[in-house]
Amino acid sequence: MLTTRLDLDRVRAARRHIDPIFLDTPLYQCDALGRELGCTVSIKLETANPVRSFKGRGTELVASLLTDQGRTAAVCASAGNLGQALAWSGRRRGLDVTVVASHRAPAVKLDRIRALGTELELVDGDFEMARERAVNIARRRDVRLVEDSLDIETCEGAATIGLELASGASTFDTVLIALGGGAMATGVGYVLKTLSPAVEVICVQPAGAPAMTRSWHERRVVTTDSYDTIADGVAGRYPIPVVLDDLLQVADDAVLVDEASIVTGMRMLLEHAGLVVEPSAALGVAAILEDRDRFAGRHVATIICGSNVDPDAYHRWVRA
Amino acid sequence: MLTTRLDLDRVRAARRHIDPIFLDTPLYQCDALGRELGCTVSIKLETANPVRSFKGRGTELVASLLTDQGRTAAVCASAGNLGQALAWSGRRRGLDVTVVASHRAPAVKLDRIRALGTELELVDGDFEMARERAVNIARRRDVRLVEDSLDIETCEGAATIGLELASGASTFDTVLIALGGGAMATGVGYVLKTLSPAVEVICVQPAGAPAMTRSWHERRVVTTDSYDTIADGVAGRYPIPVVLDDLLQVADDAVLVDEASIVTGMRMLLEHAGLVVEPSAALGVAAILEDRDRFAGRHVATIICGSNVDPDAYHRWVRA
Repeated sequence: MLTTRLDLDRVRAARRHIDPIFLDTPLYQCDALGRELGCTVSIKLETANPVRSFKGRGTELVASLLTDQGRTAAVCASAGNLGQALAWSGRRRGLDVTVVASHRAPAVKLDRIRALGTELELVDGDFEMARERAVNIARRRDVRLVEDSLDIETCEGAATIGLELASGASTFDTVLIALGGGAMATGVGYVLKTLSPAVEVICVQPAGAPAMTRSWHERRVVTTDSYDTIADGVAGRYPIPVVLDDLLQVADDAVLVDEASIVTGMRMLLEHAGLVVEPSAALGVAAILEDRDRFAGRHVATIICGSNVDPDAYHRWVRA
Repeated sequence: MLTTRLDLDRVRAARRHIDPIFLDTPLYQCDALGRELGCTVSIKLETANPVRSFKGRGTELVASLLTDQGRTAAVCASAGNLGQALAWSGRRRGLDVTVVASHRAPAVKLDRIRALGTELELVDGDFEMARERAVNIARRRDVRLVEDSLDIETCEGAATIGLELASGASTFDTVLIALGGGAMATGVGYVLKTLSPAVEVICVQPAGAPAMTRSWHERRVVTTDSYDTIADGVAGRYPIPVVLDDLLQVADDAVLVDEASIVTGMRMLLEHAGLVVEPSAALGVAAILEDRDRFAGRHVATIICGSNVDPDAYHRWVRA
């Protein structure tokens, strides 16, 4: 019996608060990619929506709750995708959204947040510094702080992906989930372990930003002094204890992958699946590349979680 | 009153015979692309499925009909996407599929047809030569010939895209549809003109393969001696008379675009929408680029109909 913060009825109910544009995303087998990887590969595509990532599922839920509570403003720290999604969900509901991000975030993510008419504050440090600044802004202005992975709605939103994976025509041996703060991994993992317990849930994180994976293996919060990865969407240093508690229950494994594998994964997704993805979305393919024997002949689903990538960096990576 | 070969009840019924993997595809507004083009742009994405084009909608219907009729084999001529889709739909139903294609078709399309275990016959000439050869094979072997755009199921399958466009949350001023043989243009156009008559239906064809567009403007079949375009998916020389009859009733306009605009369209879809597309799928954006004033401020939907493109050619085009 799982005793996580998640609840299946709440996840099912969450669908009603999410704009359908983020729901029931494509889930299909990609033979060309599977042939290259030596296994059957199904793609769960979370990029064909106005914010080009899965984060809209969670921000729709958050923004709808805030509106119900009569709130008129919110602030969040973001590596880029949460901010864009909260800006999109907030704009539709007249919420005043402030996003705090690191100045190192991809320009395209920052540009799209600004384009949505949202206040964007940049900090000199990394994502954890943005988190600190967001906390301060929320206190100073007395507005609601939206915290990715900690706020249960962000996990429940992501968990609706799990409902779609579990209800699809195919059954999978393994689902590969990019691991950052843990909203997607705990949300999707919880639903899979509840509805399809035989499916193996593997979280994948860059070796250059390994805090949550190390924490999972040591069963206690392990922080790092820095991170260094192109997978900006999953880079953090301070795992959230309650999120780790949930992850310990729903993940079968957590693996780390090298930057070179992430780049190769991006290139393979382009060449064999015709998909432009940001580095975080290539973590699943990277995990297969680093351990082909483990996945040989199996049916693996990988969630393509975002495609907000700077064009110049992208071309440099995939053409190298 | 439209008097085409299409019928709304039949199109609605068609959905039941099509694998859901091809249905209810993403339809979403792409702000970044819209900003560049000076109008509101909605994307109807037909590439996130196992054959990476919209053709599965029609071949599912065709193959299901053939199976019901007790047929065990079929042959089709194809520029590449129909063949891949018929191979996919046939394989699931135990149909013996033969595809005839031009040796000039993109290698990736031919490879994917072969990978589906289908017999592939290549002709030295162009697509019209492949059509002739397919007719001969069908006669010689006494197997069913599947003819794109002429067989009403191919139009009805494509027409289900129209149902989804008409039932979406957004209303459009204009829908841009790639024009080749006419299955998609007549199918989608018919549904839109029936359910959303105020929506303008504009067909887009390359200036280098203008037979159907010229025919539409002259209201009679006009053939050409050759074609020359990178948009291999819509290249033909002999319009089918009954398809032209239907097109004359459902299209508000048919326009021709230059190769340079198609390339720019592909590049913009990559840079601003994160989408890899084959040239035919960029025709809509190309049409906007060639007549910005016409579309300024309007809400335009464009169907991204395929993404089967040779990687090398693609990179050459988008990085030029």
